Amino acid sequence: MPTDFVYPRRVQFAETDMAGIAHFANFMKWMEEAEHAFFRSHGMSVHEEREGELLGWPRLSAQCDYKKPARFEDELEVHMVIEKMSEKTLTHVFTFVRDTEPIATGRFVTICCKRGPGDTLKSVPIPDEIRALFTPLVMDCGSQQGKD
Amino acid sequence: MPTDFVYPRRVQFAETDMAGIAHFANFMKWMEEAEHAFFRSHGMSVHEEREGELLGWPRLSAQCDYKKPARFEDELEVHMVIEKMSEKTLTHVFTFVRDTEPIATGRFVTICCKRGPGDTLKSVPIPDEIRALFTPLVMDCGSQQGKD
Amino acid sequence: MPTDFVYPRRVQFAETDMAGIAHFANFMKWMEEAEHAFFRSHGMSVHEEREGELLGWPRLSAQCDYKKPARFEDELEVHMVIEKMSEKTLTHVFTFVRDTEPIATGRFVTICCKRGPGDTLKSVPIPDEIRALFTPLVMDCGSQQGKD
Amino acid sequence: MPTDFVYPRRVQFAETDMAGIAHFANFMKWMEEAEHAFFRSHGMSVHEEREGELLGWPRLSAQCDYKKPARFEDELEVHMVIEKMSEKTLTHVFTFVRDTEPIATGRFVTICCKRGPGDTLKSVPIPDEIRALFTPLVMDCGSQQGKD
Repeated sequence: MPTDFVYPRRVQFAETDMAGIAHFANFMKWMEEAEHAFFRSHGMSVHEEREGELLGWPRLSAQCDYKKPARFEDELEVHMVIEKMSEKTLTHVFTFVRDTEPIATGRFVTICCKRGPGDTLKSVPIPDEIRALFTPLVMDCGSQQGKD
Repeated sequence: MPTDFVYPRRVQFAETDMAGIAHFANFMKWMEEAEHAFFRSHGMSVHEEREGELLGWPRLSAQCDYKKPARFEDELEVHMVIEKMSEKTLTHVFTFVRDTEPIATGRFVTICCKRGPGDTLKSVPIPDEIRALFTPLVMDCGSQQGKD
Repeated sequence: MPTDFVYPRRVQFAETDMAGIAHFANFMKWMEEAEHAFFRSHGMSVHEEREGELLGWPRLSAQCDYKKPARFEDELEVHMVIEKMSEKTLTHVFTFVRDTEPIATGRFVTICCKRGPGDTLKSVPIPDEIRALFTPLVMDCGSQQGKD
Repeated sequence: MPTDFVYPRRVQFAETDMAGIAHFANFMKWMEEAEHAFFRSHGMSVHEEREGELLGWPRLSAQCDYKKPARFEDELEVHMVIEKMSEKTLTHVFTFVRDTEPIATGRFVTICCKRGPGDTLKSVPIPDEIRALFTPLVMDCGSQQGKD
């Protein structure tokens, strides 16, 4: 049964805005930080060479729903699961938790790409090694409810 | 017939990442900049006092779909329309255009709030004056296709 | 003998730029994060109410010298000491260390201010309680050499 | 007689912080934006290929002195001059002006580098073509006073 990957993150001063709350775009960065920490927790980097090719995971889409504001020095937990893995893409689902209370949820669809000359990007199938690592972690469809 | 509000925006160096492209979270900031420029174009500010109360428009949701990467010094056009206006919320739809080619689309749902003591936020109906200004600009349902 | 306060910080992907290194402006944010973590380590916040007044520490100056680039996923240590405390100001000196090697140094001069109506800022003497806490930590003048 | 290069910049909402003012680190980004606009105004890019080599201008140092806060929607002018050009480095001096009032000043020392494999950076003499372009713009030593 896949469990959440949890990335703890404190809200920094530079991340607040004049409304006195964390600026909404930072949630996008925090989701990405959690995604990358998840890769590291599996001994990988989200941006690395494999068999002479530079592999990356640009976003096809990014989305966040905000329920409560986050504030300076809040200690958040970013919970992440892999909702889906297709031939070339991963869908990551995130829940932001503060003191056991979910305050926001988000979702990324990322696509496996190799980086060519001139920083061009070309989508490629997810390498077998990564697929094997992630397969047991992909969320059971039956357990998706309640996430949003 | 409502027309797009267009906000021109050049991609800055600090907005690129090591993949050689604009970091995805910046599209969120550019949408917000367009939204705020739209408010200014109507003689308003997105964050202002009205009848002694500080009004703001926090996001309920933010979302972006990425088709092509943006790169350093690209001159983008952020096209924005108001897709929907409810009692308290606005839905803004965005298309990022580079040289007539759409490279990304996004959507915000924002909610009219007044800011109370301690930077608390309480949703309120959109003031009549703002409603009157925006009503003729709300997108006709029939013209929504093709935006995404 | 005052010792460094050490704040560990990993370089995030969004903090890199198209030159493949951490964008220089992030060092400013990391210094500020270290400063704020230092305040927290003394049971304080850099932005808090004291006797009914909201106190903050805006920067009078900020400066950084860069020796080596930082890169994605680098684990940096931000070392901080208080170099000087005047009636209203603090001077913080920072050294960025990667694997025992200093890669950058910086300095902030911050001024104690109370925040008034309309987000105005007025400089005030450093409160006695804070002065008492920080006094034993102020760097000995004789040990300043070698920092830059 | 060299004159200032002027880059207009409006303060964006995401650039404010919970103190109700523009976060100090943004001044660093605005200086860089002005520097890059200056390069563009001379038909160049700060990050470009020349004779098959990728040239860039990383910072050796960055510094800013803050006199007055900048606020949301302020229309600033970033004035820039080249204070000095050495074999490999440029020193840029900046003044931030709001309604004719200087509110901050800053300085960059940048070093001409070529980017090698693996995103390595190696300092190189400023190319003759760039040197020729900038030479008439370098600030007369006698006119440096009064800038700060």
